[in-house]
Amino acid sequence: MVSDVHIAGVGMTAFGASPERTARDMFAQAAGEAFDDAGIDPDAVEELFYGNFMGEFAEVQGHQGPLMADVVGVSAPSTRIDSACASSGVAVRHGVNRIRGGADVVLVGGSERMKNISTAEGTEALSAAADALWEVKAGVTFPGAYSLMANSYFDEFGGTREDLAHVAVKNHQNALENDLAQFQMAIDVDDVLEAPTVSSPFGLYDCSPMSDGASAALLVSEAFAEEHGLDTDVAITGTGQASDGLALQDRVSIPETPAAVEAGEAAYEDAGITPEDVDVAEVHDCFTIAEVLALESLGFYEPGEAITAAREGETTIDGALPVNLSGGLKAKGHPVGATGGAQISEMTKLLRGDHVNSDAVSDATVGLTHNAGGTVASCAVHVLEVVE
Amino acid sequence: MVSDVHIAGVGMTAFGASPERTARDMFAQAAGEAFDDAGIDPDAVEELFYGNFMGEFAEVQGHQGPLMADVVGVSAPSTRIDSACASSGVAVRHGVNRIRGGADVVLVGGSERMKNISTAEGTEALSAAADALWEVKAGVTFPGAYSLMANSYFDEFGGTREDLAHVAVKNHQNALENDLAQFQMAIDVDDVLEAPTVSSPFGLYDCSPMSDGASAALLVSEAFAEEHGLDTDVAITGTGQASDGLALQDRVSIPETPAAVEAGEAAYEDAGITPEDVDVAEVHDCFTIAEVLALESLGFYEPGEAITAAREGETTIDGALPVNLSGGLKAKGHPVGATGGAQISEMTKLLRGDHVNSDAVSDATVGLTHNAGGTVASCAVHVLEVVE
Repeated sequence: MVSDVHIAGVGMTAFGASPERTARDMFAQAAGEAFDDAGIDPDAVEELFYGNFMGEFAEVQGHQGPLMADVVGVSAPSTRIDSACASSGVAVRHGVNRIRGGADVVLVGGSERMKNISTAEGTEALSAAADALWEVKAGVTFPGAYSLMANSYFDEFGGTREDLAHVAVKNHQNALENDLAQFQMAIDVDDVLEAPTVSSPFGLYDCSPMSDGASAALLVSEAFAEEHGLDTDVAITGTGQASDGLALQDRVSIPETPAAVEAGEAAYEDAGITPEDVDVAEVHDCFTIAEVLALESLGFYEPGEAITAAREGETTIDGALPVNLSGGLKAKGHPVGATGGAQISEMTKLLRGDHVNSDAVSDATVGLTHNAGGTVASCAVHVLEVVE
Repeated sequence: MVSDVHIAGVGMTAFGASPERTARDMFAQAAGEAFDDAGIDPDAVEELFYGNFMGEFAEVQGHQGPLMADVVGVSAPSTRIDSACASSGVAVRHGVNRIRGGADVVLVGGSERMKNISTAEGTEALSAAADALWEVKAGVTFPGAYSLMANSYFDEFGGTREDLAHVAVKNHQNALENDLAQFQMAIDVDDVLEAPTVSSPFGLYDCSPMSDGASAALLVSEAFAEEHGLDTDVAITGTGQASDGLALQDRVSIPETPAAVEAGEAAYEDAGITPEDVDVAEVHDCFTIAEVLALESLGFYEPGEAITAAREGETTIDGALPVNLSGGLKAKGHPVGATGGAQISEMTKLLRGDHVNSDAVSDATVGLTHNAGGTVASCAVHVLEVVE
């Protein structure tokens, strides 16, 4: 039995349009909040894992690991992780492993700047997460790739565009009171269905937005938390990561995401739990179909059944399994390199009772986060549990 | 005492101009050689750490972790590391830590494609390793940044352009019989001094070239090596990584590289050795001055003394401390994301006796590798030892 990794502090910027802020500026804020939340000084940090995906395109800035250590006052090995939109989820996993390997304090998180370039430039930059030789050359962008997944899903399991709309409506509803969310705006199914088409079957509201933002979490060992009398209420008890080929064309089944299955199974085994034990989940809803695929891959629903669950409201704040109480990528926003860390930040707050939606899940003790890169060629899953 | 991490197999492509080859093609070759060398199948690999720096610029391809796992037949978590020119050295360190954390087989390495774009485009891409806001906007490129370091060194410690020339002459000499090297061509001090100026005090031969290439190493636990009767002659006994701010302007002293000092001290302590124990070293000579700074930072020479050592031949193949017997970045080539892994590949061969220059160091049992990113804002140092 490996030891728990305690979450001593979390932080994130409000997500949205902040074109005048740099990635470093935003990460400094998120990390600063995590330090304040934890009551730990930056000089205690022994390692930094930092997620960023499109810094080369948005800021012509690579090599962000040491840059971010420098701006947050950390003097320690610092590594930039690129796992596309799963960059900071993967950073969290490496942080967990580093604590388990003997470190006491590790900073994890990510930052992304997307709104200082045009939507077309941003879409092109995001395409670098797909296979440049076999997908992008054929014209694939991510709205297109996930459209293929949605249409294949409809073909194989049934379901309609209207069913998917419920995912977007729910996630916007969840974000209404979340001041960190990019969109605090209610929408209904008709709004989703009548929105301009992005890539059939997706309209505008089926797609997560371009966002600026950053996130951070301070992970500490059990021994460090005890020694310093830290009031850590939540620990990461399970971690899992898996990979798949980038190109959709090579998948056995387009509307399934085996990397999420593997990452989920690894995280469940690591935590010693089953999907039935999970009380609340934050999953990677970059497009409405992505939430459906995630819930099936993670074992909450059989293949083909999560779309019905969406339509029937099983994943709303009052449902059997509340999903994306933060607003998800759809409404909270999706600064890609920051998203996995933001899931940890929001889930930690939900479980310890200081999230705007905590009251609705006051009995929750087990949370799950699912962060995906590309068409789920990278996936990181974490189990968070309330600890006494 | 942590356990040794055995190097079961290594591989690398010939470095040089291969503009018709993709990064994935080259990494498949390097990893394939490592699998063959080790006698291990790809499906034994539990994790892949892969270094790449400028894929976004050269191939518009990010998210290369799962891509590379896919092309080499690995089904395991795979993470792309960007630590600029230290990307695969840092990947090696994370691989070492992963083995120590409980994994049995980890693949590490990197790949870089640089020759399919123009030298001007490549120089611009490399600049993403510097501070975009405070250095690149002021016109800094890496030949310029290292020129500042060289001129500051001359000011503070003395030395001349001619002294530095000996570094280039030596490294070209070392590469003469190395078929994997980009340049198998002898040069003399006059050649270096008479070459076209790149950025004063550097002429063309003070600078490492743009290169295409890939490298890989299979790391295994001591238990796995024993259980499978693997003939591993070399182990990584020490690892260290450190970070510094990107921008030279913020350094206390321009001609010193504290991240290399810290990474070196961490690696020595980890291995339980001192600099005096090192028999042979591969250091990051992206420019001639960089080798001088590395040898001082690593404790082989006091500040200001390594330039004299270069002039007096102390680091030649017959010297007290042979440095860069592979030819170094200068003559072997410098496909940036592959360089750290290539140092491991070449050092492993040197120590186990199957490198073209092994005979000259037949008594060597301890080797050191030093891989730097940017103006040494990232640094990874490893100690390799012959094991029975």
